[in-house]
Amino acid sequence: MRVLGIDPGSRVTGYGLVEQVGSGLRCAFYGEIKPARGASLSACLSAVYGGIKEAIRQSAPEIMAIEDIFYGKNVHSLIKQGHVRGVAVLAGAQEGLAVYEYSPLEIKKAVTGYGFAEKRQVQIMVKNILKLTELPPPDAADALAAAICHIHFLKTEQV
Amino acid sequence: MRVLGIDPGSRVTGYGLVEQVGSGLRCAFYGEIKPARGASLSACLSAVYGGIKEAIRQSAPEIMAIEDIFYGKNVHSLIKQGHVRGVAVLAGAQEGLAVYEYSPLEIKKAVTGYGFAEKRQVQIMVKNILKLTELPPPDAADALAAAICHIHFLKTEQV
Repeated sequence: MRVLGIDPGSRVTGYGLVEQVGSGLRCAFYGEIKPARGASLSACLSAVYGGIKEAIRQSAPEIMAIEDIFYGKNVHSLIKQGHVRGVAVLAGAQEGLAVYEYSPLEIKKAVTGYGFAEKRQVQIMVKNILKLTELPPPDAADALAAAICHIHFLKTEQV
Repeated sequence: MRVLGIDPGSRVTGYGLVEQVGSGLRCAFYGEIKPARGASLSACLSAVYGGIKEAIRQSAPEIMAIEDIFYGKNVHSLIKQGHVRGVAVLAGAQEGLAVYEYSPLEIKKAVTGYGFAEKRQVQIMVKNILKLTELPPPDAADALAAAICHIHFLKTEQV
């Protein structure tokens, strides 16, 4: 099973591929899409869409696991994140991936055992679980955590 | 000037082309994209993206005028609308359109003179302004109103 995790953000969108090999997990690659500061909404959405399409082409996943939006944020940031997330789900659907969503709490819990873990704890646990040689950047770590979360929980209802 | 108006909605997305011919306005066509009830988010976003791309191909606009999100809604519907709007802006940007946004208040005011006008008033005024033979459906009317609003206001800052 090859799962592309996505952490859609209004500023940075993380992605990362986790592959289940026997009983172990392996990370094929990860990265972050960072539209230029001050880029227009159009340019930002085009960058996210293009970046995710490219990640799918490079990693050939069957599944996308995408982080749901945390409602505690302010409304403006929430809507911007909604725009980015819409484009990410579209890119996955167009490439024929099955798309599943997990809440930030489910994702943090899957890798740290605690739903309100700090970002750094997620980075450290993802590094350990996937036996990476270095700490992945925070949004890529969240994306990899989403993929790990799907492999643990295997939700059946697609979005 | 050919402006494609878009009213992105969590259930129905309206679109409509308004062309300025001399000092008058003409409607080339309008319609609504209605993903099937109970359709998955992926299917819904694919339908909106495909529908808008098709509308652009059919109507060859240079400009997209898209309605901004009204913050008074509940958070869940707001985020869903954010997803749809993201996909709509992406479709416009990919086709090389200049994308402008207007608030629901600006749009209603542009066609009825009153920012809190009822949906039906917008339909009636859009029918009159564009000399349509029948009342356009509500979301298509809002989309046409967004296009009329851009022709009136001509914002310069793209999104």
